[in-house]
Amino acid sequence: MAVYDYAKGLVIEAGNNIRKMMQEEIDIETKSNPNDLVTNVDKATEDFIYNNIMENYPDAQVIGEEGHGKPMSELKPEGVVWVIDPIDGTLNFVHQQENFAISIGIYNDGKPYAGFVYDVMNDKLYHAKAGEGAFVNEHPLKPIAGSELKKSLIGINPNWLTKPQIGVIFKKVVDDARSARAYGSAALEIVNVARGKLAAYMTPRLQPWDFAGGLIILNEVGGVGSDLLGKPLELTQPHSVLVGNQAVHEEILNKHMLSEKETLEALHARYKQ
Amino acid sequence: MAVYDYAKGLVIEAGNNIRKMMQEEIDIETKSNPNDLVTNVDKATEDFIYNNIMENYPDAQVIGEEGHGKPMSELKPEGVVWVIDPIDGTLNFVHQQENFAISIGIYNDGKPYAGFVYDVMNDKLYHAKAGEGAFVNEHPLKPIAGSELKKSLIGINPNWLTKPQIGVIFKKVVDDARSARAYGSAALEIVNVARGKLAAYMTPRLQPWDFAGGLIILNEVGGVGSDLLGKPLELTQPHSVLVGNQAVHEEILNKHMLSEKETLEALHARYKQ
Repeated sequence: MAVYDYAKGLVIEAGNNIRKMMQEEIDIETKSNPNDLVTNVDKATEDFIYNNIMENYPDAQVIGEEGHGKPMSELKPEGVVWVIDPIDGTLNFVHQQENFAISIGIYNDGKPYAGFVYDVMNDKLYHAKAGEGAFVNEHPLKPIAGSELKKSLIGINPNWLTKPQIGVIFKKVVDDARSARAYGSAALEIVNVARGKLAAYMTPRLQPWDFAGGLIILNEVGGVGSDLLGKPLELTQPHSVLVGNQAVHEEILNKHMLSEKETLEALHARYKQ
Repeated sequence: MAVYDYAKGLVIEAGNNIRKMMQEEIDIETKSNPNDLVTNVDKATEDFIYNNIMENYPDAQVIGEEGHGKPMSELKPEGVVWVIDPIDGTLNFVHQQENFAISIGIYNDGKPYAGFVYDVMNDKLYHAKAGEGAFVNEHPLKPIAGSELKKSLIGINPNWLTKPQIGVIFKKVVDDARSARAYGSAALEIVNVARGKLAAYMTPRLQPWDFAGGLIILNEVGGVGSDLLGKPLELTQPHSVLVGNQAVHEEILNKHMLSEKETLEALHARYKQ
């Protein structure tokens, strides 16, 4: 069986398991701060996915949010790399019991191979094999059209606007846009750009497992992703992220980001630590 | 037939009509500013609802977003008043073709009688008859639990955080909360509080048709709504709005709003014009 079909089945099975586990009490722990949560379901889902991959593809390299696989810095570009977030949008999972996703990006010899973002509670699997278009379940996603920022909805978490440095930069983008939305899962926000529901999404820091799956899907419909200074997103480190349709991505980059190069480079350096 | 059952059927029929109209090209016009949109579908839907009510209940008073019925200032509290937003979340309707709602609140002799918020594209009708509990389609909504702000998701549009006065006040609430979300339809945000998906939602200015339906639903599950200074929401004028579960509503009011009385009263006076 091709890795693509195997991965698709694996993601759906992992989603079924999550729905079952949600019928029991959920254990919640904090990680880096009181608002950075992890649950037994995050861990059990990554265990399930990791162990299943290792049984079927023992040579695969894996990076997972909850600690499975290699440290990102030890990643070798050769061979197949799986980048896994078992539950993207853990706060939504805990507080809403919906609006979270399983995200998986698969790379082969450093090149994108396939992306999966499974909106578990809506039973919508967004998936793409590089070069073959993107789908939601069995329906193709259309190529996304360009838009002007002033006639666009953009995705941005309100929390960033209260921060001293990035808040000042993001404020200008929000004021230039038609309006802003915040759904609370980076993978689903990127997918919302791929679906044409948002023209862009931006955030000062994501880990590779937050964006790897969504980005491959987005690229298949003509959308683009980079860091906030237009540089490529790599799998070996956290990045600031700006995704969008081509026109609005370029407009935000040229009008609002490149002029803030010094501030953004300082933020990038801080966030890499 | 009781007004409640009649209204329920009317909302569902209006939603069916919207889905049909969405198969044709949509005409979009601007209203008060370039980001305040109205479409032929908003207007046709309000026409449909208004005419249908007038045929069946010629004595009813109606307030509608798109200009049907009486000016709010001429409203008499006696008898039955219908407060109608044919499409709440018009930006979502235009840009996303989803995440918008038909909202209707019905009052009898000045007292809440019934609320309806129809999430058209998800085919979810939230409804409540005062004193008899709230439902999504045929399933009862549970009473909502109280929560602490620091462990809560709140709804707030990022755009308000960029504004000089209200932005400073809302920033403190966002910083105290666990995280923030923005869905772009006031009626659906209030319903999200009633569903327990958000602990609170706040905004500096809504018209009665934005909150009338949702508020009746929210009250049925134990949630509360007021203006940002804790005063009751009336049907005769625009209001600032703070809705939430009881505990978080009280916390936001006491900790963040009442100390800003002077600023908020000045904003209220400006927004009433």
